[in-house]
Amino acid sequence: MSEVYRTRRARLRERCSSSGGAAALVSSPANVRYLAGAAPHGAVLLLGRQDDLLVCPGPSDDRPTEGRPDDSLRVHALPRAGGDPAVAAADLLTAQDGGLLAVEEHHLTVARHREIRSVAPRLRLTDLGGAVEQLRVVKDEEEISCLRIGAEITDQALGELLESILVGRTERHLALELERRLVDHGADGPAFATSVATGPNSGRRGHRPTDRRVEEGDFLSVCLGAAYRGYRCEIGRTFVIGTSPADWQIELYDLVFAAQRAGRESLVPGAACRDVDRAARQVLDSAGYAQGLPALTGHGVGLEIDEDPQLAPAAMGKLDVCVPVTVEPGVHLPARGGVRIDDTLVVRPEADGGPELLTITTKELLAL
Amino acid sequence: MSEVYRTRRARLRERCSSSGGAAALVSSPANVRYLAGAAPHGAVLLLGRQDDLLVCPGPSDDRPTEGRPDDSLRVHALPRAGGDPAVAAADLLTAQDGGLLAVEEHHLTVARHREIRSVAPRLRLTDLGGAVEQLRVVKDEEEISCLRIGAEITDQALGELLESILVGRTERHLALELERRLVDHGADGPAFATSVATGPNSGRRGHRPTDRRVEEGDFLSVCLGAAYRGYRCEIGRTFVIGTSPADWQIELYDLVFAAQRAGRESLVPGAACRDVDRAARQVLDSAGYAQGLPALTGHGVGLEIDEDPQLAPAAMGKLDVCVPVTVEPGVHLPARGGVRIDDTLVVRPEADGGPELLTITTKELLAL
Repeated sequence: MSEVYRTRRARLRERCSSSGGAAALVSSPANVRYLAGAAPHGAVLLLGRQDDLLVCPGPSDDRPTEGRPDDSLRVHALPRAGGDPAVAAADLLTAQDGGLLAVEEHHLTVARHREIRSVAPRLRLTDLGGAVEQLRVVKDEEEISCLRIGAEITDQALGELLESILVGRTERHLALELERRLVDHGADGPAFATSVATGPNSGRRGHRPTDRRVEEGDFLSVCLGAAYRGYRCEIGRTFVIGTSPADWQIELYDLVFAAQRAGRESLVPGAACRDVDRAARQVLDSAGYAQGLPALTGHGVGLEIDEDPQLAPAAMGKLDVCVPVTVEPGVHLPARGGVRIDDTLVVRPEADGGPELLTITTKELLAL
Repeated sequence: MSEVYRTRRARLRERCSSSGGAAALVSSPANVRYLAGAAPHGAVLLLGRQDDLLVCPGPSDDRPTEGRPDDSLRVHALPRAGGDPAVAAADLLTAQDGGLLAVEEHHLTVARHREIRSVAPRLRLTDLGGAVEQLRVVKDEEEISCLRIGAEITDQALGELLESILVGRTERHLALELERRLVDHGADGPAFATSVATGPNSGRRGHRPTDRRVEEGDFLSVCLGAAYRGYRCEIGRTFVIGTSPADWQIELYDLVFAAQRAGRESLVPGAACRDVDRAARQVLDSAGYAQGLPALTGHGVGLEIDEDPQLAPAAMGKLDVCVPVTVEPGVHLPARGGVRIDDTLVVRPEADGGPELLTITTKELLAL
């Protein structure tokens, strides 16, 4: 595995040398984990011109971390707790050779940035921007395999819930039970806060579970995902409670299903991100739901649950092979509820059968 | 309740006028909630020279938020999703009157700060620093009452767990069960990730639950807390599994208990934070455990689980009445395990009976 991380760091270093030979200071935890194999709490990664250094906070922080730092990295722990590893890293670098240091300006606060400048005034600071995030967009098969296992775990947890009695239970309890089942099946934990929404809450993106109980006739929408070895996937489904859905429920479900299918089917290598969004969005638009649609139809997933690319009207860029994304259109009608359907898929060449669906729970409208 | 938030904002405005009459842009979510009554996802609060404005992201973000914004606030939602409310707020202000704007440099990233400067070049930006955090240190009785209810919920959840069979269950399962019980008893959710540590893991601060199962003879240490109306408390206890603790377990427990009591007893109004830390720490030091002690003995709690003040060797400042803090010394022996004992208390005058203990679960060494 060490080879993987060394290669990733070499690619980043290449980008840095092509833009003036800066050293790089990576502080965003997901980026540190991607390049180092682990992100101990508060640690930063310094890519010097020769040497790579993982700088960790004080020695008394004995919290274990997920993953293990790549053996080829030097690890430097601050002698005393309470210091800022980013500041210490800049100090170490300036002692080495001064020069140019690229930092993650979208992650570092103004206060930390100023402290780095004051500790290492000989360094010229520049912006690393989203360079590491860009490297992370296309996944290798090892990463996709973690997402696939996470999706299997997620499907299992959801499947078990559907076999149990739901009427009378609260959104909060259902969400907690789903999270317990994720862990039962081997997840590190939930990939994000599990959302369970009933009745008038159903179909809301990111709804936080309340004490509302499931009732006959409700829509029930759930959104959950497992984190597995750090990789986060997402599934969303909407069900109807009781023996027979109302006509408006069937119509709305079919509409969102058609929008979601249109989005999935447009996931081909080279497709513009905005076109995938448009494919799903125009199905809802033309049915009169243009108002109040979510800002995006989907997004990348990986070490974070919300990564590049974004599938949104103003998104730039095209989809590459081996990019995992969600497709998750939804409609919420105030006071009535709504439908969301959400899958995680990996973009694959058409010759290989097109997009690989990771979350395989049925999308038929189940009456539970 | 509106009065409370207006008063808090008036106090902040007073501080701003005394330092040059700056308007203030509050972006840290806990600070926004403290001043506005609620912090919709991504919202920022602009304290203008006359008017206060809560600037929220686009209208399509229909996620509900905890709490409700104070009625006396004007709410401004961005017309389109994807914009940065902090940038929009600066833009609104500069349209009004330009001048000086104090921002939270310890929260804003370098990239956001630069975007504000480019959108509103006529504004002179200055640093609000931790002004809101400082206002938050001393709590009112309403806030303390939320912490007290949270602590009751936490004690209940822990008490129920102790009545169940523990041997053979994994750390992960016990943690999930505790979190479910917190919610059962009315918590918003856990105040932080519940820690359950068994055997060699016991006594580690912030230990993440693993698949290790509870065994006879283990130390079992747990750390959990409820969030109630946004306020977060914390309790930590260590138990021994089986009929009779070993001698080393009794000795270590008694030692940490003595340290924790020394810390609690030094919580008097006017005490220096570092002296509280020293009171607990020197008990452990003098028993030969100076190496590997945590960086701090305790910390403030409130809308965040880790607030000012810090009880640490280099901490500045003194304790005021109505400041809630944790006292949580611990010792961890590599490969053997250890003990942590953690309470949430409120500093009270000696005339009122001294520190108010919120987390009342027994601190006798229970053999379970």
